[in-house]
Amino acid sequence: MSQGHFIAFEGVDGSGTTTQSRLLASHLREAGLPVTLTREPGGTPVAEKIRQLVLDPSLEGISPTAELFLYAASRSQHVEEVIAPSLNRGDVVICDRYIASSIAYQGYGRGLDLEVIERVNRLAVGECLPAATIYLLLPVEVAWARLRRRDVADRLEQTGMALQEKVSRGYQQIAQKDPTGLVFDAQLGIDRLAEGIQDALRRQWSWFPEEKK
Amino acid sequence: MSQGHFIAFEGVDGSGTTTQSRLLASHLREAGLPVTLTREPGGTPVAEKIRQLVLDPSLEGISPTAELFLYAASRSQHVEEVIAPSLNRGDVVICDRYIASSIAYQGYGRGLDLEVIERVNRLAVGECLPAATIYLLLPVEVAWARLRRRDVADRLEQTGMALQEKVSRGYQQIAQKDPTGLVFDAQLGIDRLAEGIQDALRRQWSWFPEEKK
Repeated sequence: MSQGHFIAFEGVDGSGTTTQSRLLASHLREAGLPVTLTREPGGTPVAEKIRQLVLDPSLEGISPTAELFLYAASRSQHVEEVIAPSLNRGDVVICDRYIASSIAYQGYGRGLDLEVIERVNRLAVGECLPAATIYLLLPVEVAWARLRRRDVADRLEQTGMALQEKVSRGYQQIAQKDPTGLVFDAQLGIDRLAEGIQDALRRQWSWFPEEKK
Repeated sequence: MSQGHFIAFEGVDGSGTTTQSRLLASHLREAGLPVTLTREPGGTPVAEKIRQLVLDPSLEGISPTAELFLYAASRSQHVEEVIAPSLNRGDVVICDRYIASSIAYQGYGRGLDLEVIERVNRLAVGECLPAATIYLLLPVEVAWARLRRRDVADRLEQTGMALQEKVSRGYQQIAQKDPTGLVFDAQLGIDRLAEGIQDALRRQWSWFPEEKK
């Protein structure tokens, strides 16, 4: 079926998933591999519209279940329009956040049943699951300090320390259970972290490009 | 658990579900019963925002699966915020469109797997299912002529005759299989139809108010 390789980055806000997914994409492109770099929620015009809605501060009263379905809508559009076609033509697909984010935020963070989250997500993505999931784990107080340095005001990031802490603990547990999981300490410097991720993937996959001299 | 009574109206665009759900609500209110009249997609501020998104013409490229999840998001918010609390306090809840609309439009209309639709919806609503579902069935060419008389321009109603025909045929099949279904010919005059619906519900439920003199 799919010829490509699907890699997801996961971690709390401030853990560096966006930076690290970009660095990995650059590294692979420099080695001449076809790469699709994308992110969730979003990744297509339709999914971006759904993302805008999810992040809209006026949606404060949304129930955790409704939020779960909005993310599922965005994700299924993203899979169908971007991820699956890219994998089918042989790309390395790097996705900044995927299913584990729903489990961490909606499940551990907002208390939604983990089983329901997994069932909804399987209906949304079918067999389109990452072959490697890179978890960037960060003690919650460090993530919080990083976020406060940014000018962050959207609804998700306003909900504060208590949520971040639950989510952070959630990621630890999800990472432990995930058979595709590669776990890193997000407090490493940006470059050392990027190298560590590349090393781990290189050990896993023979097609992964060699270290730069 | 729930003390109230949940009645859904279903039928193609132009079949009169909105008119008939209002007439039924008036009838029951005049008899002194507590009634919550609501509609889908929508029914709460959050769900209305999702409804606006679903109906946005710029969302033309949305996949059937993503659309299914948007409706599920709207529906779960609606259940949690309006339908379940209203039933719990003993209201008659009248809902203009509910799960059968997803099966008719996303399933029969857009070709999505019916089993997936039912599973997603069960995850969205739990046990909150109508005790009576009133189907207003209409031959497709009649529905079409009715719609053209209105000034209708949203995306769903622009998609034309072919879709309406599939949806119309879908409703016939859904109505036949639904154990809560009460089926009516939507071509009856508005008042005769309203009376027919009241008669059917009166035969079903002893609490239903007597005919007006």
